[in-house]
Amino acid sequence: MSAVTDSSDSYRKAAEFRAELRRFLRRSEIVARDVGITPRQHLLLLQIAGSEDETTTVSRLVDSLSLTQSAVTELVQRAEAAGLVARASSKFDGRVVNLSLTEAGKRKLAQVHDALGPERSHLRVAIDALPDTD
Amino acid sequence: MSAVTDSSDSYRKAAEFRAELRRFLRRSEIVARDVGITPRQHLLLLQIAGSEDETTTVSRLVDSLSLTQSAVTELVQRAEAAGLVARASSKFDGRVVNLSLTEAGKRKLAQVHDALGPERSHLRVAIDALPDTD
Repeated sequence: MSAVTDSSDSYRKAAEFRAELRRFLRRSEIVARDVGITPRQHLLLLQIAGSEDETTTVSRLVDSLSLTQSAVTELVQRAEAAGLVARASSKFDGRVVNLSLTEAGKRKLAQVHDALGPERSHLRVAIDALPDTD
Repeated sequence: MSAVTDSSDSYRKAAEFRAELRRFLRRSEIVARDVGITPRQHLLLLQIAGSEDETTTVSRLVDSLSLTQSAVTELVQRAEAAGLVARASSKFDGRVVNLSLTEAGKRKLAQVHDALGPERSHLRVAIDALPDTD
């Protein structure tokens, strides 16, 4: 009896969390498209801007974006072609390519990030309101 | 100068949050496929199990899954065909169809939910560790 109660309580909390997450991600996708970039481009720009010295590499993006090497490579190429991202060889190791945002990339990211401010706050409140599960 | 600092700090936190979220969602997709259901079927089963009386309707799923009515309808039809979900007319209103989990649906959900326990805990810790942004 108590096992049944515990599991349905855990399901209820997980379900609420997932519903809030879906709303946040859906809204995030809409805002990205509204400013003329894809949802993945938004995440790419954010991961670059959020890196130390605001520059990063394809290898590190594979980890932070949870995408394959080839998916990241294609994403970066398209973002470069769209004028959002710039590539430069590392001063320390010519084989390493550092990625940074162009002025246009910075502008697009700031637009999406600002528009999502209330959504981030809402998600944070919703997550905090969920009692610990597991 | 302080505006620049604030914005890169906000980007860093948002980037870390998104990276953790991507890992969680990626892991969740893998676990679902491992037990033989799609990631969307997992979310469908969870939203049904997490509802009051462990039953819900297509209209309520449109809201909790952030999908269109037609996407939810198709998702439910496929889950019913796969023997995961059962439909029954409401005792109170014959036009309303209540969805519930079959025994197979309950088993699959429990498998995914249990396997994701450590991931939920990890995500919770990671989110809690992020200082408030915005």
